[in-house]
Amino acid sequence: MAEVKKIIGWFGAKRGVQFDVTEDLVGGCAYDAHGTPLTDATMAKAQEVDAVLLGAVGGPKYDKLDFSVKPERGLLRLRKEMDLFSNLRPAQCFDALADFSSLKKEVVAGLDIVIVRELTSGVYFGEPRGIFMEGNERVGINTQRYTESEIARVARSAFELARKRGNKVCSMEKANVMESGILWRDVVQEIHDKEYPDVELSHMYADAGAMQLCRWPKQFDVIVTDNLFGDLLSDAAAMLTGSLGMLPSASLGAPMANGRPKALYEPVHGSAPDIAGTGKANPIACILSFAMALRYSFDMGDEATRVEKAVEKVLADGVRTADLLGPEGGSPVSTSVMGDKILAAL
Amino acid sequence: MAEVKKIIGWFGAKRGVQFDVTEDLVGGCAYDAHGTPLTDATMAKAQEVDAVLLGAVGGPKYDKLDFSVKPERGLLRLRKEMDLFSNLRPAQCFDALADFSSLKKEVVAGLDIVIVRELTSGVYFGEPRGIFMEGNERVGINTQRYTESEIARVARSAFELARKRGNKVCSMEKANVMESGILWRDVVQEIHDKEYPDVELSHMYADAGAMQLCRWPKQFDVIVTDNLFGDLLSDAAAMLTGSLGMLPSASLGAPMANGRPKALYEPVHGSAPDIAGTGKANPIACILSFAMALRYSFDMGDEATRVEKAVEKVLADGVRTADLLGPEGGSPVSTSVMGDKILAAL
Ligand SMILES: CC(C)[C@H](C(=O)O)[C@@H](O)C(=O)O
Ligand SMILES: CC(C)[C@H](C(=O)O)[C@@H](O)C(=O)O
Repeated sequence: MAEVKKIIGWFGAKRGVQFDVTEDLVGGCAYDAHGTPLTDATMAKAQEVDAVLLGAVGGPKYDKLDFSVKPERGLLRLRKEMDLFSNLRPAQCFDALADFSSLKKEVVAGLDIVIVRELTSGVYFGEPRGIFMEGNERVGINTQRYTESEIARVARSAFELARKRGNKVCSMEKANVMESGILWRDVVQEIHDKEYPDVELSHMYADAGAMQLCRWPKQFDVIVTDNLFGDLLSDAAAMLTGSLGMLPSASLGAPMANGRPKALYEPVHGSAPDIAGTGKANPIACILSFAMALRYSFDMGDEATRVEKAVEKVLADGVRTADLLGPEGGSPVSTSVMGDKILAAL
Repeated sequence: MAEVKKIIGWFGAKRGVQFDVTEDLVGGCAYDAHGTPLTDATMAKAQEVDAVLLGAVGGPKYDKLDFSVKPERGLLRLRKEMDLFSNLRPAQCFDALADFSSLKKEVVAGLDIVIVRELTSGVYFGEPRGIFMEGNERVGINTQRYTESEIARVARSAFELARKRGNKVCSMEKANVMESGILWRDVVQEIHDKEYPDVELSHMYADAGAMQLCRWPKQFDVIVTDNLFGDLLSDAAAMLTGSLGMLPSASLGAPMANGRPKALYEPVHGSAPDIAGTGKANPIACILSFAMALRYSFDMGDEATRVEKAVEKVLADGVRTADLLGPEGGSPVSTSVMGDKILAAL
């Protein structure tokens, strides 16, 4: 996030675009400071701002904490209370990194798809949930639950996005074994037929989807899927690009009074506790998340492109953090040097 | 299945091992014949035999059928009523096909892992389930539900398997967001500590698992996971090997009176309705499923190896069904020629 602040500073100094930045804690650090992964005060602040930029939460240090105060609960509370139902996760392969994927170059080069993941419902939030006694043994229960309107709104957001891209949506569920999947498929189809007949729509079982993502991901443009499937599928897709440390995401809700959507931006990658504090982390996913904020929250598409182009230039120049070095090795730059190079390219 | 029957016939004629084979319908063909994807008579028969060999179920022709009579219900009823809780899905990369994966050769060559998927519980079978009215909209509900003993028995089967292989188990769930995942993790750890302390155990979130499978699958030996995660992860793993048409599976339950486990063997691939009846399908996954039956149901490990070696030989000789041809093409053999070649190699 320190590198993002440099970029934000540059916009103030060089482009005359001032951002009013305020900082607060969420996740493990919030727990350490306040005994909760998200204070009510921070939650209230998040509701008021135009956009939240989030680092990442979680780590083995907090594994033994009670479920209700785990770092993840802070992030999930933000998503839920801000009602950020549409999570856009681009899986893009950067030219300079196409060799770096575990997939063959021809399979991933030029890949540019977006997974639209429903983010505020499903098994993440459904009730009943918990661990209960039944006879003399424990039972773990979670509930997958989707209402028609929850499915409809995320479907709309996928169709809108597709219209600005390749005009193709593939919806994924397990309608062959789950009734919630049947409803999902039906509602997506209905919204399509009534409101977006011009967009090409297909349906795929999520297991086949996982397969096809590994086999020939370029067949997709926009994928829309539920919270849990979206979690797995977007991580797999991100990894395919060989650019996990590079991938941003936007979580969007309904428009606020000022017309801007409720919004939170975060890298797809996690907190990488093994390298935290060592200056080795790749700041690009975080910086590109800020670019998404420029585009989706502040209607500054050109400025967003400017940031993205700066990142591309730095990569083309061969600047690499440690995660971007292949087995051949090379000399990695630190987090802050990567940030400085991007600044210079700007 | 016709090709498997040739192999079974060969065992009778050349190895003096007679199998008493009886045939019946399940899935779409059973629905066509009887209006149900599995008759009670067929179900009863399946309970009595030493091993069930299953082809595959499902196809677009049946997409509009009511959920209760979809082809998949036939298969799910077999799994549930035979109580086949442990589904072994090897993901193996055949040397002759290492080039054929969408992954780089060095990532998959020599890959040999097994996913142990819980098969009789979780969101596939949990209640309540269905589509209900709530106010004036529909709600789709499914229930993820695991008891301690359900988790314990599949964990044991994974640890037992690991002891015969690389002695390493990785358990996957979403304990960071699902209570059923917390119970899963706790029970797997308890069974490990009490009964299998000699086996190396690790835990991974299922989204990270999907990622790691795509990045460096050789880090795994045995993966144990629930029904739904197992569905997605095993399909992704199968695809990675480049050998989807090649991968068998075994679904095992408790021992019967004769000491043999309840068992069903089926290819990991689906029914491939697009090529059904064209003579293009690859029979190898089906034939290797029979090899698994020899090993797990009939204690004929050497004979199983004989079949596996015959398949390897035929592949090394360059015999290929259409699915095994890369973009360079070549001349594919038909399903039955592939069967005959394997017979000849035997
Ligand atoms: C950290 C965790 C709660 C989160 C999730 O499961 O949604 C993460 O995996 C993600 O994909 O954003
Ligand atoms: C056909 C279907 C019911 C089945 C499943 O979802 O379990 C299949 O995808 C599988 O993996 O065996």
